[in-house]
Amino acid sequence: MNTVSPETISAQLNWRYATKKFDTTRKIAGDTWKHIENAMALAPSSYGLQPWKFVTVSDPALRAKLREVSWNQPQITDASHLVVFARKIEVSKADVAAYIDRIVEVRKAPREALAGFEGMMVGSVSNPGNLPGGSMDTYTRSQTYIALGFALYTAALLGVDACPMEGFDPAKYDELLGLTAMGYKASVIGAFGYRASDDPVAAMAKVRAKHEDTFLRR
Amino acid sequence: MNTVSPETISAQLNWRYATKKFDTTRKIAGDTWKHIENAMALAPSSYGLQPWKFVTVSDPALRAKLREVSWNQPQITDASHLVVFARKIEVSKADVAAYIDRIVEVRKAPREALAGFEGMMVGSVSNPGNLPGGSMDTYTRSQTYIALGFALYTAALLGVDACPMEGFDPAKYDELLGLTAMGYKASVIGAFGYRASDDPVAAMAKVRAKHEDTFLRR
Repeated sequence: MNTVSPETISAQLNWRYATKKFDTTRKIAGDTWKHIENAMALAPSSYGLQPWKFVTVSDPALRAKLREVSWNQPQITDASHLVVFARKIEVSKADVAAYIDRIVEVRKAPREALAGFEGMMVGSVSNPGNLPGGSMDTYTRSQTYIALGFALYTAALLGVDACPMEGFDPAKYDELLGLTAMGYKASVIGAFGYRASDDPVAAMAKVRAKHEDTFLRR
Repeated sequence: MNTVSPETISAQLNWRYATKKFDTTRKIAGDTWKHIENAMALAPSSYGLQPWKFVTVSDPALRAKLREVSWNQPQITDASHLVVFARKIEVSKADVAAYIDRIVEVRKAPREALAGFEGMMVGSVSNPGNLPGGSMDTYTRSQTYIALGFALYTAALLGVDACPMEGFDPAKYDELLGLTAMGYKASVIGAFGYRASDDPVAAMAKVRAKHEDTFLRR
């Protein structure tokens, strides 16, 4: 174990904020970015199914088009790295089987030992109305927000700025990124990079509800 | 800035896993728990609205009842700390106004400077069909998963075990926790504590899709 001090965690979580203006001259180093991607991939998900794709968009022309369907928000083009967190439209029996295959591969486990787990998952995804959230779409969408949280948190620990963004036209994103044909839909965006020295929001105090309004005790 | 090394992040994210069996004799120290709560409260949310309550359930009798409507999963009673992440059923104009009040209080900002921001938020929550996710319920639910991610991540950094859980009857939770009357609904659970030395899952290799199956490049 290699734990982190509470003071460090607090310092970095208070340092982070939803960056409105990125420094367009600064790029995240490839090695640093790799660590953020690794953390996203390590995010937990329901059953471990990972019903998602993380779409990193580098092409400037494509990012310009995305900005047009994102209320013209500058982070879409100005951030060093842009990630669209996409959810799977449908988790099928075949997807569950592929996941079981992956478990067998990684853990060198006998497939028959996983039959119960597979059956449980197939039962869940075959009755989407009973899934957590009440639909397949809400179920897979929710998982992508855990991964978003992991990405934002990791960026903060590494001293990388970020902005979570929901203000975009998801159908246009699906089309521009070619997601529909692949069976995915855009859920939410993370823009990553370094704050501009003149982003006025950077200096503003973080606003959170009082603890007694946030926590209930039972 | 007080950044954390990539090696430390990787070590702790690989150390964490969805704990199936907690050590019932070990409790999280109050000071440590306080840091996990602080991190949850620092999680970002849409516009910063924090449309959530984090319900920490300590009463053993209540936890026993919750376990009954959670497929009898032992983590509900055996974890040191149990948190139900609840979303607001409706974010109203009054909620937006209260949030603006809080910004004014924390930032000592003139209220009139926030009129545009308030108007934008009121416009959003007044047209729930246009909210990210397509409904108020999906919108606020999604936010709670960011906070779940922050809580799980913080626990891992501090060397505290955790299990995210969606397998429970949310309507029964709302009733048992008195959430409905307060205008909230249970989204997802985090159980926190320390792994039992004989949890067989602890030793299993973490299973994730291959990087090339997780990331799309555009």
